[in-house]
Amino acid sequence: MSEWVKIFSPATVSNVGPGFDVLGFAIDQPGDELTVRKNNTGKFHIVNETEISLPLDPEKNVASVAVKAMLDALNVQQGFDIVFTRKIYPGSGIGSSAASSVGAVFGANELLGQPFLRKDMVRFAMEGERLACGSAHADNTAPAMMGGFTLVQSYNPLTICPIPSPSNLFCTVVHPEIEVKTADARKILKKDITLRAAITQWGNLAGLIAGLMQNDFTLIASSLKDVIVEPVRSILIPKFNDVQKAALDAGALGCSISGSGPSIFALSNQQEIADKIAKLMQEIFLSVNIGSKVFVSQVNPVGVRVMERG
Amino acid sequence: MSEWVKIFSPATVSNVGPGFDVLGFAIDQPGDELTVRKNNTGKFHIVNETEISLPLDPEKNVASVAVKAMLDALNVQQGFDIVFTRKIYPGSGIGSSAASSVGAVFGANELLGQPFLRKDMVRFAMEGERLACGSAHADNTAPAMMGGFTLVQSYNPLTICPIPSPSNLFCTVVHPEIEVKTADARKILKKDITLRAAITQWGNLAGLIAGLMQNDFTLIASSLKDVIVEPVRSILIPKFNDVQKAALDAGALGCSISGSGPSIFALSNQQEIADKIAKLMQEIFLSVNIGSKVFVSQVNPVGVRVMERG
Repeated sequence: MSEWVKIFSPATVSNVGPGFDVLGFAIDQPGDELTVRKNNTGKFHIVNETEISLPLDPEKNVASVAVKAMLDALNVQQGFDIVFTRKIYPGSGIGSSAASSVGAVFGANELLGQPFLRKDMVRFAMEGERLACGSAHADNTAPAMMGGFTLVQSYNPLTICPIPSPSNLFCTVVHPEIEVKTADARKILKKDITLRAAITQWGNLAGLIAGLMQNDFTLIASSLKDVIVEPVRSILIPKFNDVQKAALDAGALGCSISGSGPSIFALSNQQEIADKIAKLMQEIFLSVNIGSKVFVSQVNPVGVRVMERG
Repeated sequence: MSEWVKIFSPATVSNVGPGFDVLGFAIDQPGDELTVRKNNTGKFHIVNETEISLPLDPEKNVASVAVKAMLDALNVQQGFDIVFTRKIYPGSGIGSSAASSVGAVFGANELLGQPFLRKDMVRFAMEGERLACGSAHADNTAPAMMGGFTLVQSYNPLTICPIPSPSNLFCTVVHPEIEVKTADARKILKKDITLRAAITQWGNLAGLIAGLMQNDFTLIASSLKDVIVEPVRSILIPKFNDVQKAALDAGALGCSISGSGPSIFALSNQQEIADKIAKLMQEIFLSVNIGSKVFVSQVNPVGVRVMERG
């Protein structure tokens, strides 16, 4: 059995268009890189080799909290060193905390002889989300763990469905350097919506699922629309409408808010379109003196993975 | 080219569980039977050989109104005799008017040399629905025309997606002999719903679509739940909760209101279960002195079809 594993754990886009709170997908870049190693102290030891500030207290770090949940389920006492060497920027809306929780749980599972399947580890990673945002949601942890598109059909019991999708699906994600507090993004949501809007939304989500499963890009494009959350939350993201229009004009299948923002994602069926959109997105933010990071990658069909072991 | 065609046009279940207003499916029984024949008068002539009262005025009969819409699109003047020999009971919630519109349009299209594909004829049949209920909805006409499960992803533009489904899917439909006025069933709906309930509903609909397309009966069963419309409308249907519980206890994948009621449908993956549910449903209604008709059939994969031609 390995003594250590180096893990790549991907960023994820949640709240995909009409799939608020239920649909997410994994991307190939950016991602966390972390090394997990057994130790003999019976305790967690967090090491941060990135430039991003991370909690070193194992009770406050999502990675160790998630691994602890797994150890409890196994009724095992085991210490681990968790060394972060690359970290998705927190608060960007692309599943930074989920990537850490998922990466650590997946790594520890490797070192313990794989007692769990991927789908069974989502619930442990969700304990990291509970620490990070107060509720154990799965819309980032599920795709980070399982890859591709995942639907959280129900929380009680936890039912996660992988949704097959076209192999040539490219994602552009832009992270403008502004802060949108998750608390604000939540507060701004309306508690009540019209039945009429909800019907439009669930027709679109059903169309998106069918389109993904049938490789029907026309259907994906006509369904990738959020009439409920995006109109409300987009007001927190400067230039959102311009960015979305530019992406659609350039040939994107769809473009919406990633997670609770401020990141914005676009899906395309050609790498060249995805690259072009990346350039346009950055230009639009630059025009109002907002810097941004932008990432182009295929939808990641695998999810978290071992990069190296020893 | 044929001079006449005899058509079978199936009943349909709309508002399938979480798919209110967007998802429907065709069944094999009951259905309309009608003969369509060209005449030389340039006019419509409706003949009713059933025991059910039907409008004979071509401007008030959904069948002729729907065919007229097709003729207008073709810019053709042609008279037709439309002879009804069997008719789904109107107002039962299983797409009686849609079956007539779809059957007549499909028959006329055959006699005109098939100028239209099935998917392109839905919009003509919808004109029959507009006459019948004031709005041109497609959730019964689409499955009656195309067979199987169909999703109305959008009305503008009209986008209808066939949803592949398992071949061994059996439907029990019970029509209790009480009247629920569509107007009442509409009036009782709330205009506003909570975002929380809507998320549950669209997670379920997405799960149902994925379950149907992947032949995953466990997922179908966990997703075939309507938390928004059924709790409101079911109060108009005596013994609804008992019927639903009996169906689920007997092994149904799901059980909910068909259309706007009062019919109730259950889906099962075995003929024996569907038959058993039929018996239980009738017994429950009989226990409160309500007679009922009950139908068991496979989900109809074809939709409207020619029975005979000459």
